Amino acid sequence: MKIDGKAYRTIWREGDAVVVIDQTRLPFRLETLRLTDVEATAVAIETMVVRGAPLIGATAAYGMALGMAGDASDGGLERAFQRLIRTRPTAINLHWALERMRTRLAELAPGERAGAAWRLAASIADEDVAINAGIGRNGLRLIEDLAAGKADGEPVHILTHCNAGWLATVDWGTATAPIYMAHEAGIAVHVWVDETRPRNQGAFLTAYELGHHGVPHTVIADNTGGHLMQHGMVDCVIVGTDRTTAHGDVANKIGTYLKALAAADNGVPFYVALPTPTIDRTIADGIKEIPIEQRGGAEVSEVTGRCADGRLETVRIVADGSPVANYAFDVTPARLVTALITERGVVPASAEGIASLWAG
Amino acid sequence: MKIDGKAYRTIWREGDAVVVIDQTRLPFRLETLRLTDVEATAVAIETMVVRGAPLIGATAAYGMALGMAGDASDGGLERAFQRLIRTRPTAINLHWALERMRTRLAELAPGERAGAAWRLAASIADEDVAINAGIGRNGLRLIEDLAAGKADGEPVHILTHCNAGWLATVDWGTATAPIYMAHEAGIAVHVWVDETRPRNQGAFLTAYELGHHGVPHTVIADNTGGHLMQHGMVDCVIVGTDRTTAHGDVANKIGTYLKALAAADNGVPFYVALPTPTIDRTIADGIKEIPIEQRGGAEVSEVTGRCADGRLETVRIVADGSPVANYAFDVTPARLVTALITERGVVPASAEGIASLWAG
Repeated sequence: MKIDGKAYRTIWREGDAVVVIDQTRLPFRLETLRLTDVEATAVAIETMVVRGAPLIGATAAYGMALGMAGDASDGGLERAFQRLIRTRPTAINLHWALERMRTRLAELAPGERAGAAWRLAASIADEDVAINAGIGRNGLRLIEDLAAGKADGEPVHILTHCNAGWLATVDWGTATAPIYMAHEAGIAVHVWVDETRPRNQGAFLTAYELGHHGVPHTVIADNTGGHLMQHGMVDCVIVGTDRTTAHGDVANKIGTYLKALAAADNGVPFYVALPTPTIDRTIADGIKEIPIEQRGGAEVSEVTGRCADGRLETVRIVADGSPVANYAFDVTPARLVTALITERGVVPASAEGIASLWAG
Repeated sequence: MKIDGKAYRTIWREGDAVVVIDQTRLPFRLETLRLTDVEATAVAIETMVVRGAPLIGATAAYGMALGMAGDASDGGLERAFQRLIRTRPTAINLHWALERMRTRLAELAPGERAGAAWRLAASIADEDVAINAGIGRNGLRLIEDLAAGKADGEPVHILTHCNAGWLATVDWGTATAPIYMAHEAGIAVHVWVDETRPRNQGAFLTAYELGHHGVPHTVIADNTGGHLMQHGMVDCVIVGTDRTTAHGDVANKIGTYLKALAAADNGVPFYVALPTPTIDRTIADGIKEIPIEQRGGAEVSEVTGRCADGRLETVRIVADGSPVANYAFDVTPARLVTALITERGVVPASAEGIASLWAG
């Protein structure tokens, strides 16, 4: 997607280095970081310079390529793998990308590994772009249908939560892919961007990427979506998902479930956009089976922003001495999901719908 | 209620002055402000040194007393009334308290007005305390019932949104009155305190007052309540209301509706605590008939908190250039409200339930 007219991906190769957008600096500064070895890549993942499951996977793959460029021996291969795999223990794309790199590279002679690693990392990144573009094309048709029911010039209002945008992937994003596709196709869209407390990924990242690409949007407190839906101001919701069960339950950023309830209560379609490889067909009941990560309380009790004089400052926003809890995700049951938007098609959020993705 | 062991109200008379807790300094500093004339009182209301409908009403009444102490002529009476009534144009308690003061004082000779004004203001404040204590006693029975189903030592978990606490009233609060009564009665309670974006009244004020009174509580992002209810971690919700219709719809702080949906979806009782005088029997359908105030975007895009060095600082927390919308309230339809807790009793949120409050 574009930042102020210039096309970007979140990660790309430059000679012997890998360059990433430093997402810890957004939204207040656009800075890139050059990664030249495994350690720097691992630290970039650990410190959330890069974030979002698909982007983490691609970054780890490029980290393996940097590793092979430095030491392509069997020992070097194993050291690179072990360093990278422990950066974010629960990230499924990280495991998948690293296993794929290791398996392929181990089959080759050391002298062939660096070149192959660069090519394979690039193809992992390109596959992510292709999958998201597929999600975008399939979701575009849903937005086209909503646009057909609108008066001339009236935009399709889409609410999203957190950042399942291009910044979380290599390009396009998942939830945002249909939005960008619609915008490119000349369909008037307007996005309600949930702030997404406590980490503010909506106000920081989704607002940044939509704004700099030129997509009309408005940031709202997470509390607001229900009111908007009651008053006919939301035509559909599109969110991403961290984990989708075989029955169509979706684990996504905390608060997603509340928006799904409001959508159901007001007859607003609630779509979840996802790459089919992220479906976890080994589990059925998301509420019972998906453990929800609890993160540090400082994410709730403190917030970092920019002062009037341009400095970044962290301030406490909870009364002193008050305990804080920070659940990172919640599970939206399949019954509240209108459909899953995948690169293989749009299907009901049900065991049958999901099975149909691989049928025929 | 108490702050660190010392009993307080939010407003009291000291000689020829009125003293209020300066709520713009909370939660980081406890400071009081001495008001000695009408203008200072009006400014205190306008700048939200005092806030919460019941407290605004009591403050305005005391402002009339300060006015009569200075100039008890018919002109002085009218000037005090006119200055105070334009401080918060939509505050119903403000109108009601001021009209009551003016009507009563106009009947008296100027020489009798100052003394009568002090007495009437004190009785308006005392009536608020009595009403809230009545809400507390009636709500206490609901908490006792929930406690009866608990294992020994396991607290009753109550979720609340915004600040319908004693700081919003003269004492006890509305939503918090049953909680304080239960705590005083030795029932183990634990309160989930919604942060309440964008103005953070939960994290700032509810957390402050519960913490300094000694009531166990935990601050959570507004996104969290649905997850907690899915996992049986909330025994009931108690919130306040700014306006209640004759059919039992309730307008309250934005986001209340989302919690009501989650409560209904998980079989959690959802209670609304309110003084019966705040019921607006002239309207029926809250979603259609209650206009929702839109406030300035800076409440969403900026937050004020305390830096590590103790200074208060305001920081921007939305990407530059992104528009912001700020709807202050939403309407929870009566079908999602388990019961209304009033000083006259606990009744269903329905036309029949509300009518029964004044029956017999």
